[in-house]
Amino acid sequence: MLMTDIIAKKRDGGELSAEEVAFFIKGVTDGSIPDYQTAALLMAIVWRGMSRRETLDLTLAMMRSGETLDLSGISGVKADKHSTGGVGDKTSLALLPMVAAQGVRMAKMSGRGLGHTGGTLDKLESFPGFSSALSEEQFLAQVERVGFAIAGQTADLDPADKKLYALRDVTGTVQSIPLIVSSIMSKKLAAGADVIVLDVKTGSGAFMKTEADALELAREMAEVGRLAGKRTVACITDMDQPLGRAVGNALEVKEAIALLKGEFGGDLLELCLTLGACILTEAGAAADDAEARAKLERGIADGSALAKLAEFVAAQGGDARAVYDVSLLPDAPVKYEALSEASGYVRRIDAEGVGLVSMHLGGGRETADSAVDLAVGVTLNKKRGDAVAAGESLATIHARSEAAAEAAAVLLRRAYSIGPERPEDVPFVKAVVRAEG
Amino acid sequence: MLMTDIIAKKRDGGELSAEEVAFFIKGVTDGSIPDYQTAALLMAIVWRGMSRRETLDLTLAMMRSGETLDLSGISGVKADKHSTGGVGDKTSLALLPMVAAQGVRMAKMSGRGLGHTGGTLDKLESFPGFSSALSEEQFLAQVERVGFAIAGQTADLDPADKKLYALRDVTGTVQSIPLIVSSIMSKKLAAGADVIVLDVKTGSGAFMKTEADALELAREMAEVGRLAGKRTVACITDMDQPLGRAVGNALEVKEAIALLKGEFGGDLLELCLTLGACILTEAGAAADDAEARAKLERGIADGSALAKLAEFVAAQGGDARAVYDVSLLPDAPVKYEALSEASGYVRRIDAEGVGLVSMHLGGGRETADSAVDLAVGVTLNKKRGDAVAAGESLATIHARSEAAAEAAAVLLRRAYSIGPERPEDVPFVKAVVRAEG
Repeated sequence: MLMTDIIAKKRDGGELSAEEVAFFIKGVTDGSIPDYQTAALLMAIVWRGMSRRETLDLTLAMMRSGETLDLSGISGVKADKHSTGGVGDKTSLALLPMVAAQGVRMAKMSGRGLGHTGGTLDKLESFPGFSSALSEEQFLAQVERVGFAIAGQTADLDPADKKLYALRDVTGTVQSIPLIVSSIMSKKLAAGADVIVLDVKTGSGAFMKTEADALELAREMAEVGRLAGKRTVACITDMDQPLGRAVGNALEVKEAIALLKGEFGGDLLELCLTLGACILTEAGAAADDAEARAKLERGIADGSALAKLAEFVAAQGGDARAVYDVSLLPDAPVKYEALSEASGYVRRIDAEGVGLVSMHLGGGRETADSAVDLAVGVTLNKKRGDAVAAGESLATIHARSEAAAEAAAVLLRRAYSIGPERPEDVPFVKAVVRAEG
Repeated sequence: MLMTDIIAKKRDGGELSAEEVAFFIKGVTDGSIPDYQTAALLMAIVWRGMSRRETLDLTLAMMRSGETLDLSGISGVKADKHSTGGVGDKTSLALLPMVAAQGVRMAKMSGRGLGHTGGTLDKLESFPGFSSALSEEQFLAQVERVGFAIAGQTADLDPADKKLYALRDVTGTVQSIPLIVSSIMSKKLAAGADVIVLDVKTGSGAFMKTEADALELAREMAEVGRLAGKRTVACITDMDQPLGRAVGNALEVKEAIALLKGEFGGDLLELCLTLGACILTEAGAAADDAEARAKLERGIADGSALAKLAEFVAAQGGDARAVYDVSLLPDAPVKYEALSEASGYVRRIDAEGVGLVSMHLGGGRETADSAVDLAVGVTLNKKRGDAVAAGESLATIHARSEAAAEAAAVLLRRAYSIGPERPEDVPFVKAVVRAEG
C-alpha cells in the first residue's frame, strides 16, 4: 500500500477502505508516513469529506493507536462527557458530582489546552493541593469508590490524535466534520465508558458557528458512537454568549459550587440538568427525562451533590474545606466594575471578546508552557436580554492591578452590544441528538 | 504574515495576494516554511484552483526564487521551446537545428527526468563526447555563434520549482493547472527567451489525457506568458500513440537525423513544422505560417538544418561525424521483430505501453540515479491506421539479449489494438493557442 495512492484516491473523491485508513493511522503513529503526506491527505479530507463508514474506521483506527482504558472492573454503567468547548464552560465541575450523587459513575480524562481560561484540570487546581496526576489504578479505584474521577489524559492514550491534532492546527485542517468526530470520539472510545454524552456548542463563541454545522457534528458523533457500540447522545447548546456568569479559573469553580448549593441557576443549571438527565436515562438510572431531572434537582437540594464534590476534591489530594468556604480559593486583589456607557438592553455579548478579557488578565494559556493565573477573570453582571442603565456595572473584573483592570474594562465594554429593544429569547438547548440506529 | 492564514484563505476559496504568494515562495525557497504546510497549501490549490492573476504571481515569484538568464547580449530574437512530454518525443533534436538554420536563435535548458527513455540530455549523449555541462558564458556564447545550445538546467535556476515539484510528486498534487503552469512557465521565464513555444500533448500517452484539459493548460500558459511580457504560443498535439516511430535514446537521435536528411516525415515532421513556424512568425523571421513552413522545408532540402545539428554537436564536444554516419551512434546487439498475431488495421497503440517496453529494456530511468541504456528501444513498423497481416512485424525491438527482446515483444504486442476496420483519421495538431490579450 502506498500513501501517494491513498492521497490521490481521497483527492479524487474516493472512499478509503478500512485497510487504507488503518495503514494511514499506523504510519502516523509510528512516524513512517512523513508529515507532508499526512498534511496533504488531511486537506484532501477537508475537501472531499468522509463517508460515515470511513469516519468510523478512522475513529476506531485512532482509538487503537494507543492504550485503551478497561473500565469493566468498575460497578454499574460508566459514563463520560465531552464538550466542544466555549467561554465560561465549567459544566464538568458541577455535572460530575450531580450525576455521581445519583449513583452513576463517571470516568473523565481531561486536558489543559490552550484558551481563554485554563482547562478543567487548571480550574480544579484552584483547590489547594489538588492533583490530576492519577495512576490508572488510582483512577479506576477512585471512580469505583467516590463515583467519579478527573485525570489528565495519559500520553499513551490515542497518540495518533495527538500527532494529527498538532498537524491540523498548523495546516488549516481543523475545520472538518470527520476529522473533528474522529478526534473526539477516538479519545472517548479509548477512555472506555458505556455512555457518552456530548455537549456540542454553537454560536459566536463556539467552534461550530452555525446550528447546521453543530447539528451535523452532533449527528455524526452520535452515529459513530452507536456504531462503536456505545450509548451516545449529543446535545446542541448555546454559546452565543458566555455560559453562566464567571469566566476565569477559580471564579468558575466558585460558580459551580454556588450551583451545587442551589444558589446559582440560569443557563448553566439548565445545561447540567439536560446533560445529566441524558446520562441518567441512558444509564438506566431514571425512567425518563422528568424523573432524571427531579433526581438531579433533589441531589442539589439535599446537599448530596455538593458533598460528592467535596469527597472528590479530597480523594485527589485537594483541600475539601474550600467547597464549603470559597474564601480558601484563589482571589484576585483588584475588583473593578466595568460600567455601561449606554442604557438599554443587552442585545449581544461576544463570547470570544469576553474570553479575550480573561486571556489579557492572565487567566488563559497562549502556549503550552504558559502559566495560568487562577484568580483573575470576569463575572458578568448583565447577560443577554437584561436591562441596563448607563453607569450600571456590566461586569466585575478580577485583576492583579488597577491598570490591568482598566484595560480589561475597555475590552469588556466592546464585547457588549446594547440597544433600545430587548432581544428575542432564544432556546438555550437547541436539540438533543440520539443515533437513529 | 502567517502561513496558516494563507492556507486557510485558499482552503476557503479565497484569492491570494501577490504578497502572500511571494511570502509562500520565499519560505519554500529558504526552508522557513515546513513541508507539511506547503503540502497542505498545494492540496488546497488543487482543490480551489487559482485565478489567472494568482497563477501569474506564483509563476513570477518562482522565477525570481533563483538566478535568471540574461540573453540580452545575444543578437536578434531568442526563442525557447517546451514540451509537456510523451513517448518518442525527440522533437527538440530536429526542431532546434531547423529553426537555428533560419537565423532564429534558441537557448534551451533541458532536464534528464524520470521516464520511459532518458531526457533530451541523455539522448544527446548518444553522440560520443557530447556534454551538456556548459557554463553560463559558454552557453550564451554558443547560442550567439552556433545559433542554439542545449544545456542542463543549473541548480540556481528556479529552486522553488525544484522543491515544490519534489513535494508535489509525493503528495498527490501534480495534477493542477495553476501548479503545472507555474512550474513550466517560471522555468521558461527564468531562461530568458523572448519567444516561448509550448507543445502541449494530449491523449493516452500524455499528462493531459483529454483535449479539454490540454486546452485549458495551453490557454493559461499562453496568457501567463503574455502577461509576463513574452510572445507565447501553445500547440496542442496528439500523444494517443507514440510520436514518430522510434522510442529509445539513440534510436530517437537517428530518427531526428533522418528527418533532417529529408528521409523521415509523418507526425514528427508535422510537429517540427508547426512549432517551427510558430517560432519563425513570432520572431518576425517569416511573414506568415506558409512562408515559415517553406523556409523550414528548404532548410531540410538544402542540408543547412542537418549541418546546424553537426555544428551544435561539435560545439558541445560531441563527435559530429555521427550526424552523417549513424553507425557511430550506440546500437543494440539484438534486433527482434515483434510479429502481429492478428490481421486487420492498427486501431490504437497505447503510448504508455510502448514506453514501458523501452523502460523494461533499460532505456528509461526509474530513480534519479538509474543508468540509462542509450542503445535499446523500439522502432514501430506499424502506426495507427496501418493495415497489418498476421506474421507481419509490428515493431523492431532493440535489446541487449534475446530473452529481454522476447519479453519486450509480449508487452509490445499488448500495446497494439488490431481490428477489422480502419480507424478514422484524427488531426495530429489539435489547436494552436495564442494569448487573447
